Amino acid sequence: MSLLVVGSMAYDSVETPSAKIENALGGSATFFSAAASYFAPVNLVAVVGEDFSFKDIEFLKNKNVDLTGLTTEPGKTFRWSGRYLANMNDRETLETQLNVFEHFNPVLPEKFKDSEYVFLANINPDLQYNVIQQVKNPKFVAMDTMNFWITGFLPDLKKTLSVVDALVINDSEVRLLSGQDNLFKGAQIIQDMGPKILIIKKGEHGSMLIHRDSYFSCPAIPVENLFDPTGAGDTFAGGFMGYLAMTNAINNDNLRRAILMGTIMASFSVEDFSVNRLKDLSKTEIRQRIKALIDLIHVKEDNNWITK
Amino acid sequence: MSLLVVGSMAYDSVETPSAKIENALGGSATFFSAAASYFAPVNLVAVVGEDFSFKDIEFLKNKNVDLTGLTTEPGKTFRWSGRYLANMNDRETLETQLNVFEHFNPVLPEKFKDSEYVFLANINPDLQYNVIQQVKNPKFVAMDTMNFWITGFLPDLKKTLSVVDALVINDSEVRLLSGQDNLFKGAQIIQDMGPKILIIKKGEHGSMLIHRDSYFSCPAIPVENLFDPTGAGDTFAGGFMGYLAMTNAINNDNLRRAILMGTIMASFSVEDFSVNRLKDLSKTEIRQRIKALIDLIHVKEDNNWITK
Repeated sequence: MSLLVVGSMAYDSVETPSAKIENALGGSATFFSAAASYFAPVNLVAVVGEDFSFKDIEFLKNKNVDLTGLTTEPGKTFRWSGRYLANMNDRETLETQLNVFEHFNPVLPEKFKDSEYVFLANINPDLQYNVIQQVKNPKFVAMDTMNFWITGFLPDLKKTLSVVDALVINDSEVRLLSGQDNLFKGAQIIQDMGPKILIIKKGEHGSMLIHRDSYFSCPAIPVENLFDPTGAGDTFAGGFMGYLAMTNAINNDNLRRAILMGTIMASFSVEDFSVNRLKDLSKTEIRQRIKALIDLIHVKEDNNWITK
Repeated sequence: MSLLVVGSMAYDSVETPSAKIENALGGSATFFSAAASYFAPVNLVAVVGEDFSFKDIEFLKNKNVDLTGLTTEPGKTFRWSGRYLANMNDRETLETQLNVFEHFNPVLPEKFKDSEYVFLANINPDLQYNVIQQVKNPKFVAMDTMNFWITGFLPDLKKTLSVVDALVINDSEVRLLSGQDNLFKGAQIIQDMGPKILIIKKGEHGSMLIHRDSYFSCPAIPVENLFDPTGAGDTFAGGFMGYLAMTNAINNDNLRRAILMGTIMASFSVEDFSVNRLKDLSKTEIRQRIKALIDLIHVKEDNNWITK
């Protein structure tokens, strides 16, 4: 099935305790597509500036990503720069230049309107809503958001939440959006706003899938050499949505498998700057890492568990 | 197999955002024994003061906990009081009165020297070492520790680490003891100090078992009504060690199952103050919660995972 993503393309400058890169290809739509394209054809909608080098995304074309929806506007491409602290979990944003992204108004090319699977990366919730209206008959719509939209655009966000199937969100955002300290109570409140499926990202602590009243908890892959976490969340979403679009089945078992796929794609992404690690993965590498993740959570059951 | 625990018995005063209790039965040996006694006979070594009410621990006797090693000394029982913040993860200690615990010098009753499984709760590492010397032929020794011993008593701690099989530790202590920000690199450094098995507790994020080079990650059970987390770590250790002593097998599959048992015993413990929830669990309740935990981590495998 085809998979639509609407999000950002950016140039990121990133500093970690061990390395540094300037103007590397980034953006939510970029990480998402790079990951998802291993599983399904991707229809990408984003905007870049006149300074954008299309050579940077040649690898996406080779991966069956349709770039018809990528428009160039006068001005510069969205730029972000940030620095990771020693623990590699906390980061500080040094600069955000929205540039052409500030007036992004996604219009779907005619042929994208038949997309069955839709991922709305972290953009203004009103724009997310407008994208959904343009898709003729979506089978599964998932969205991302962030604290900026939760605190400043709550009515718009709630309107969009009411028409999506799934929300990808991190644990602190669950607390902010629901007003609940308890993650699980908070999740129920958000489910009542619309999405019956929540994918809660917890960084190094993995992720959690809440599908109606079923909970699935998935650890992150142990990473000894965390190189650059930028884009890990969007890569996760790309693996998750790509797997769902490939298998075309929305049920609890398959959603759990999709979480595993998101987890391992994110684990590749953090091993290098930008989307470098996502350019040339082999099927064997992907299968091996899935196997490692399954071993990480595998328990052979006891027939009895308690005999006393 | 019989299981020896050496640790504290205390009276705790605990305040949470929703409730409050004074002088409730607590202490590492108490929580540990209450949990472990569902699986194996427990030999308890601890010290209390003249103010201790033996009625408080009558339920332990009924659970096959041998209290021969519980001594009464002149003075008062160890007292701790603390307050949990709104998130229920962070707490502040309001007061610690070591009282008779300050001069605790554990001497094993003759019949305890044959114990096969040994758990050294969080006490001075030199005392932990002396306990090990008193056990004739231990089959499996695990220990707990804390930042206080890591920063102030490192040579003693390293001596004890060199003679144990397993260390129960939380993630921030791994970083402190190893001097490594990366948890997995830190774990390897600690394994080189002695214990080939690490059980890393991560609170609401669950736990991780590192057994030589094998990693197992286990989530915590989602708790909507976290009542009082005091003693959860010792209860976890009690479920873990109790299960190992019951099944009497130290191998990777069984260690993973023991982690599950620790996890579910801790999930009961936090549902009420003190050891209240651990007094009368039925086998059915325990089996049901194990089943819930297995469902939380269960994935039905895909035969292919990636077809494109």
